[in-house]
Amino acid sequence: MAQSNTAQQWDQSDLLYGRLVLCSGTANPDLAAQIASYVDVELHPCEIRQFANSNTFMKLGRSVRGCDVFWIQPTSAPANDNLMELLIAIDMLRRDSAGRITAVVPYYGYGRSDKKDQPRVPISARLVADMITTAGADRVLMMDLHAGQIQGFFTIPVDDITAQHMLADWVCEQGIEKGVVLSPDLGRAKDARNFAERVDMPLALIEKRRSRDGGSTEALNLIGEVEGCDVVIIDEEIDTAGTMVRAAKFAKASGAKRVYALATHPIFSDPATERMREAGFERIVVTNTVPIPPEKRMPNIEVLDVGPLLGEVIRRIHTGRSVGEMFNE
Amino acid sequence: MAQSNTAQQWDQSDLLYGRLVLCSGTANPDLAAQIASYVDVELHPCEIRQFANSNTFMKLGRSVRGCDVFWIQPTSAPANDNLMELLIAIDMLRRDSAGRITAVVPYYGYGRSDKKDQPRVPISARLVADMITTAGADRVLMMDLHAGQIQGFFTIPVDDITAQHMLADWVCEQGIEKGVVLSPDLGRAKDARNFAERVDMPLALIEKRRSRDGGSTEALNLIGEVEGCDVVIIDEEIDTAGTMVRAAKFAKASGAKRVYALATHPIFSDPATERMREAGFERIVVTNTVPIPPEKRMPNIEVLDVGPLLGEVIRRIHTGRSVGEMFNE
Amino acid sequence: MAQSNTAQQWDQSDLLYGRLVLCSGTANPDLAAQIASYVDVELHPCEIRQFANSNTFMKLGRSVRGCDVFWIQPTSAPANDNLMELLIAIDMLRRDSAGRITAVVPYYGYGRSDKKDQPRVPISARLVADMITTAGADRVLMMDLHAGQIQGFFTIPVDDITAQHMLADWVCEQGIEKGVVLSPDLGRAKDARNFAERVDMPLALIEKRRSRDGGSTEALNLIGEVEGCDVVIIDEEIDTAGTMVRAAKFAKASGAKRVYALATHPIFSDPATERMREAGFERIVVTNTVPIPPEKRMPNIEVLDVGPLLGEVIRRIHTGRSVGEMFNE
Amino acid sequence: MAQSNTAQQWDQSDLLYGRLVLCSGTANPDLAAQIASYVDVELHPCEIRQFANSNTFMKLGRSVRGCDVFWIQPTSAPANDNLMELLIAIDMLRRDSAGRITAVVPYYGYGRSDKKDQPRVPISARLVADMITTAGADRVLMMDLHAGQIQGFFTIPVDDITAQHMLADWVCEQGIEKGVVLSPDLGRAKDARNFAERVDMPLALIEKRRSRDGGSTEALNLIGEVEGCDVVIIDEEIDTAGTMVRAAKFAKASGAKRVYALATHPIFSDPATERMREAGFERIVVTNTVPIPPEKRMPNIEVLDVGPLLGEVIRRIHTGRSVGEMFNE
Amino acid sequence: MAQSNTAQQWDQSDLLYGRLVLCSGTANPDLAAQIASYVDVELHPCEIRQFANSNTFMKLGRSVRGCDVFWIQPTSAPANDNLMELLIAIDMLRRDSAGRITAVVPYYGYGRSDKKDQPRVPISARLVADMITTAGADRVLMMDLHAGQIQGFFTIPVDDITAQHMLADWVCEQGIEKGVVLSPDLGRAKDARNFAERVDMPLALIEKRRSRDGGSTEALNLIGEVEGCDVVIIDEEIDTAGTMVRAAKFAKASGAKRVYALATHPIFSDPATERMREAGFERIVVTNTVPIPPEKRMPNIEVLDVGPLLGEVIRRIHTGRSVGEMFNE
Amino acid sequence: MAQSNTAQQWDQSDLLYGRLVLCSGTANPDLAAQIASYVDVELHPCEIRQFANSNTFMKLGRSVRGCDVFWIQPTSAPANDNLMELLIAIDMLRRDSAGRITAVVPYYGYGRSDKKDQPRVPISARLVADMITTAGADRVLMMDLHAGQIQGFFTIPVDDITAQHMLADWVCEQGIEKGVVLSPDLGRAKDARNFAERVDMPLALIEKRRSRDGGSTEALNLIGEVEGCDVVIIDEEIDTAGTMVRAAKFAKASGAKRVYALATHPIFSDPATERMREAGFERIVVTNTVPIPPEKRMPNIEVLDVGPLLGEVIRRIHTGRSVGEMFNE
Repeated sequence: MAQSNTAQQWDQSDLLYGRLVLCSGTANPDLAAQIASYVDVELHPCEIRQFANSNTFMKLGRSVRGCDVFWIQPTSAPANDNLMELLIAIDMLRRDSAGRITAVVPYYGYGRSDKKDQPRVPISARLVADMITTAGADRVLMMDLHAGQIQGFFTIPVDDITAQHMLADWVCEQGIEKGVVLSPDLGRAKDARNFAERVDMPLALIEKRRSRDGGSTEALNLIGEVEGCDVVIIDEEIDTAGTMVRAAKFAKASGAKRVYALATHPIFSDPATERMREAGFERIVVTNTVPIPPEKRMPNIEVLDVGPLLGEVIRRIHTGRSVGEMFNE
Repeated sequence: MAQSNTAQQWDQSDLLYGRLVLCSGTANPDLAAQIASYVDVELHPCEIRQFANSNTFMKLGRSVRGCDVFWIQPTSAPANDNLMELLIAIDMLRRDSAGRITAVVPYYGYGRSDKKDQPRVPISARLVADMITTAGADRVLMMDLHAGQIQGFFTIPVDDITAQHMLADWVCEQGIEKGVVLSPDLGRAKDARNFAERVDMPLALIEKRRSRDGGSTEALNLIGEVEGCDVVIIDEEIDTAGTMVRAAKFAKASGAKRVYALATHPIFSDPATERMREAGFERIVVTNTVPIPPEKRMPNIEVLDVGPLLGEVIRRIHTGRSVGEMFNE
Repeated sequence: MAQSNTAQQWDQSDLLYGRLVLCSGTANPDLAAQIASYVDVELHPCEIRQFANSNTFMKLGRSVRGCDVFWIQPTSAPANDNLMELLIAIDMLRRDSAGRITAVVPYYGYGRSDKKDQPRVPISARLVADMITTAGADRVLMMDLHAGQIQGFFTIPVDDITAQHMLADWVCEQGIEKGVVLSPDLGRAKDARNFAERVDMPLALIEKRRSRDGGSTEALNLIGEVEGCDVVIIDEEIDTAGTMVRAAKFAKASGAKRVYALATHPIFSDPATERMREAGFERIVVTNTVPIPPEKRMPNIEVLDVGPLLGEVIRRIHTGRSVGEMFNE
Repeated sequence: MAQSNTAQQWDQSDLLYGRLVLCSGTANPDLAAQIASYVDVELHPCEIRQFANSNTFMKLGRSVRGCDVFWIQPTSAPANDNLMELLIAIDMLRRDSAGRITAVVPYYGYGRSDKKDQPRVPISARLVADMITTAGADRVLMMDLHAGQIQGFFTIPVDDITAQHMLADWVCEQGIEKGVVLSPDLGRAKDARNFAERVDMPLALIEKRRSRDGGSTEALNLIGEVEGCDVVIIDEEIDTAGTMVRAAKFAKASGAKRVYALATHPIFSDPATERMREAGFERIVVTNTVPIPPEKRMPNIEVLDVGPLLGEVIRRIHTGRSVGEMFNE
Repeated sequence: MAQSNTAQQWDQSDLLYGRLVLCSGTANPDLAAQIASYVDVELHPCEIRQFANSNTFMKLGRSVRGCDVFWIQPTSAPANDNLMELLIAIDMLRRDSAGRITAVVPYYGYGRSDKKDQPRVPISARLVADMITTAGADRVLMMDLHAGQIQGFFTIPVDDITAQHMLADWVCEQGIEKGVVLSPDLGRAKDARNFAERVDMPLALIEKRRSRDGGSTEALNLIGEVEGCDVVIIDEEIDTAGTMVRAAKFAKASGAKRVYALATHPIFSDPATERMREAGFERIVVTNTVPIPPEKRMPNIEVLDVGPLLGEVIRRIHTGRSVGEMFNE
Repeated sequence: MAQSNTAQQWDQSDLLYGRLVLCSGTANPDLAAQIASYVDVELHPCEIRQFANSNTFMKLGRSVRGCDVFWIQPTSAPANDNLMELLIAIDMLRRDSAGRITAVVPYYGYGRSDKKDQPRVPISARLVADMITTAGADRVLMMDLHAGQIQGFFTIPVDDITAQHMLADWVCEQGIEKGVVLSPDLGRAKDARNFAERVDMPLALIEKRRSRDGGSTEALNLIGEVEGCDVVIIDEEIDTAGTMVRAAKFAKASGAKRVYALATHPIFSDPATERMREAGFERIVVTNTVPIPPEKRMPNIEVLDVGPLLGEVIRRIHTGRSVGEMFNE
């Protein structure tokens, strides 16, 4: 048995919450690498695999006792596997006596199941919040939630960071002369308005309405003006791209010139890429919160790197400095 | 000491959750009376008053041991007093061994503080949910929440009832020939769309944007068409009426004919009535979830009674039958 | 709005916990059908599917308000999907105001991650227990847990039912003259002893030991006597069948005659069936707690139906009668 | 496996909370028998014993699934054993699926450790409340708590019953002509006042004060008049009888005639009986909340039976009727 | 996005719990200023106001991430507003990632609702404790609670400081020759005894008793001797002053000379000042735990400043040193 | 009131969790002294005694505000007293604002009540875990639990240390030529295998079986070979020694030469020492997790000191370093 070394040294910042440790689950290792690069620490070793019976196994390569651990895992598809992996990781970290555990969830799966918009359905986004908390996370770091209220599903502190300013900067750099921001869904009209304000363009909206004959067809309206304009469609995520592509087509049919598709989260569930290829977007601009497999990397796609943004937030959380001031708030 | 009466009888429905008991706090006794009338039980006696030191005192007139108690209290202004009264009532009922406690909160105060729309602010709507739960409520019955996600702030079951169909029925009865539904706030665009669908009118929206020079003035846009139309402005509540009146003026300036103001909750904080008197609404239609003092009962106001609706929901909760089927859902 | 029907009738037993409702997740619909057949109620309708983004969606076909709901879902492979589906179902049932929710989990996934047998690993079996509880289950019904202590991972009541007597009855019916029960793993020696006692045979054990040279090879010992005997290998589950097949081979090499493989849970992860086909078992006897796909139904397999057993337990839970007395305990 | 008997019958009252079951721990079996006799049910069988290693073992003789169980156990000396026995019993009942568990604790051990009257001490009375709640009790029934605030240490419902009226009735029956009630401790002055009001006598108080020279001796004062009076000393418990005997002696020295000692709880820790024998009380009147061993049954003691009182309260809790109305409240 | 400044420096004491931050709610800004002055930090900026709908709004001027925050807010009248403001503040601090949150509540509203002294009433003092804990406070600092047991309503650590020694010092400085301490209420007899011991005077008590004819009138007795003495009436608070003034009148009628009124908390609910002006107190001595509006500052009042006392306690809590040793305990 | 000393200094390691404080309950003061000696700090003063009414009283001699406190208390016999003492200590430490509380429980009483091995019994080992957590412990340090799953009864972090390597080292030092490890109970076969692997000996097992005629007698089998061997019987504890002595006798009857008894915990409940004296063990080797009274210190006993082992673990927990690496894991 080795004697303990009493001459051990800590950085000042490490005394506040313990030594900074970054770990990555299997959901988005590239993003984790980008974050680690910015923060300038190596990713902590951890073995993660599935047993033959599909149960997830996990073991830390070294102890994180007393450390300030950030576990990076968006809960994108396969959502249940990625979520369970995150929860098991948190349990593991807690039982290894981590000093503080921050779940870094750049994309929050089940975020759209955030209310009972029909009777007899669950509110899975709240369930997920309770599970993360019960597993033992001390705090959560997320990006561009489907609804701001999801932050209220937690009682532990949440940092909800946005990439909207990165997307807005991209738009401003394009030098669009006569542009209009188009909200593809009325439920996100306010977010689109905020984006329009950032890029100083007018706003238009797509309204979807059930057809009067009670059938499954639906009627679309475009409220506002797009004729002769370059149209910037903004959403928080592109899932199957149905909403986004329908808006693009309607905008073009209404006289729009170039159409841009912007979103933070490139979910790209099938048949998203097929649909988007046909829709003729000038550019598709997303971030790397969620990994994009090579076969879904369309030629006109542009992927903004949120690694430095998340890395800076993590440094500030670790050193106890304001995150809001990064956004001039 | 009296011997116990073993011949006591229960109704079948009373065996499920105990005997039905309706109680009213001081926030809206008229609504409570309407509900009691529909349900056909007398309100349970309870003494409620404020001590000289402003602390709320409460004492049940008779025991509610084993009963299925519904406590009716919207947390409208004075919000803190009404909320604390509700919480103290729940504690009292729990300590008197009520069988089940349902907080009937037709208007949910602090509902608009449902997210961190700026840094360093609380999420009071979640705090209130935790307080109701901690005090000991078993379930909650609410009406037309500011955001559906508030239901997810609770883990106890919530029935969130809507009065939108009552308002829509009223509109349909007016025989408006060329009408348009106007959403006065982009954040509620989807709800306005749903209302427009119900009354089969097109939709228009007011967009509010901060002025470009960074000053406190703001610019408004009306997206969609209102010229020559009768305009139905729909919101979930009318607070100071600033949003509603601004929308009405803008609509008239844009060529609207008659303008109707509709909302579930008549909060009418000052200077609401003053503003609304000047705005020239054809009719102002609200419900009685919140009491309207006589001096705020404008001549052109119409108040729909939600008492029977809440009463029917309470009967169904008490007898264990579906609430959703009331709404053909 | 329909008037409420006050003449509604309940059975006596339905007044205790509400009307009995059986629901099935997607993990083992055949077992659910067997249970429903025994209990003599129809399975409650519920739509369950995965969105394109891999999130699970669920909606009850009819309200379960006030009902005594049993949700049947073993958390076998795909374990994470089946577990999340169970959790979401519980959330849905709670938010639809179910009177009581019993999670019927005939196979408890992650059960083998029940302790820290090495440092820096999670205890996933406890995590899963906390998740089921947090989601809102009132009680749990399980079968042949990997370790009895898992019952202590819950504070809500658990009924842990065994199928060992069904397996023992099967053995007794074979008329084996000179049999021996073989425990394939020292960690389950006590369970094997209990089984040996039931079928009145002596006990032998396989001991696995790491090889002395520190390599990855391992040495086996067979402690006890099997020569000239029919050997009954008993385990609580057959996963990849490595343990079971190794024991069978060693028994044969030690002079055993016929070898039987018995277990409650037919997990059959690859390459289980391949291995078992080669091992030359006289019979493989399991139950239907977990579905066996057609391609894994080996000719020498016998599947005992636990549907009536679970059905009877459910009836007793619903009517408030002892479950233990079913087992003469 | 037996088929379930669907013709099972319940009483109406048993449908509300399940069938009434009375169980007794080992602390006061005589009181439990008195209660059972009043309620007219047999005590439920339960084996309770200590292993050689001093751990408490317990097993119910029959299942209490779905029953309304009252477990009777004052936590008098040996306090830790009796308390642990109570907690283990609650855990056992919960895991056997009792419908409702009421801890009947006629004497609440650790009740005097209810505040930090000096720094760096625990508040054990709150700890005990949390333990009873954590173990799984649904409600608590207690008698004459040391301080009413202890009820607030619980969030589950508490019925705190008093035997003061039984003691007062006894005094009234004595036909004392010139009596005075004496509070032996200023901390219980208000309770003594209430008792004096009941028996319509004036009040006097003993004040204990540390001696001025800082030594361990203390000075006593008798505030009020006792000369020529029969003195009734009232307390909630008699522990070592130091306080009670000191008050009696001081009263006699101040000219009192006969002195009566009354208290609900006969704790009688050594050297209580020795002291009381010497003090020359006319009568010592207590109840049977706590058992009095034969060697401590002094000739001038009178033990009032609280069995019927507790029995009636239990019947009312079981049938959902007011307990307060027993006391004309 | 600014780069993080890695050269940031902390004091040693700030590493233990984070940098010390003092904030004040709106209840007693003068006291907060006194505390801040002693501790020698500036009060942290925070905007607090009420919306037109009476909901409380709050926003921190700067982030308190990782700080050791003390929020100063007595919950005196308006009690509900002040309490809700405190709770919302705690939620805000928690969501802004404060390192530790101490609720400094020099006066604990609802403290007198600490037990069920009659049936069917709440225990609001426990409810308030649960609310403060649920909102997210890590610890509480209070002064002269109505009952010591309220500390046991919390499981988070509580520092309950007393100002009794300050009041006693004041009395000792008056050079009273023949004094007596009078307890105006039997429920606080023990506290009065402790005070009498401090100032080395005898003790007398007022007993209030319901009149025998059952009417609403009540009879008073003065137990002990006050004739020819200067009388010091001591209580923990002066609310409507009914108790205090009644005691003073009775003392004077019993031959007392000068009468002093002392209490920690100057609640002064109407008609306190009117009553006290007429009662002819020599001096009224209180502290500034609660603000006294100018119109209630009677000429014969003396207000002792508890700012330095609270400030010193806060410094000790922040630096992890004993608070008890301040009081020679 | 003293001014605060701002020049106070901390060690770096004390800044992480506060200053290290070791306290001992009354269960095993000798072990606590050994630990304190290794760690090189004095035991913190604390008064612990039982009141006449058997309630435990406790008071810290000095404040532990902000300290990293380790409270040493095995819950051996008298188990209930020792457990309650531990819980009360934790409550006291929490209310004195300890920075972190680690319950050091070298022997975990009630550990064998870890599952429902028969119906209608409690799971006391889980109850105890909940009680330790509810009382306020932040973490637990234990040794050689009866079952590894007990670690999963906690959600707070647990360090479960083993003394098996100390026992194995002792065996290896004996130079036994032909040895065999004997597991006296099938339920611990796997642990015995691990021990056998460490000391490089073969394994044998005792099987206990109920006799076929249903009587209370039982049959034993020895599975494996012991003839001519020195037999090392290994268990985690020696309680009444029935199991151990029975195994020794059976081994000797089967031809064993010398027999050694090894176990971590010397519970030695009566009649353990009597039995062991007669059994003729070569040596009895245990540790000092539990105190052995002088009359039970048999001549052939050897007690290994776990003080340095626990002391080193405590130092590592205090300084945030890996515990696993002590065991080359």
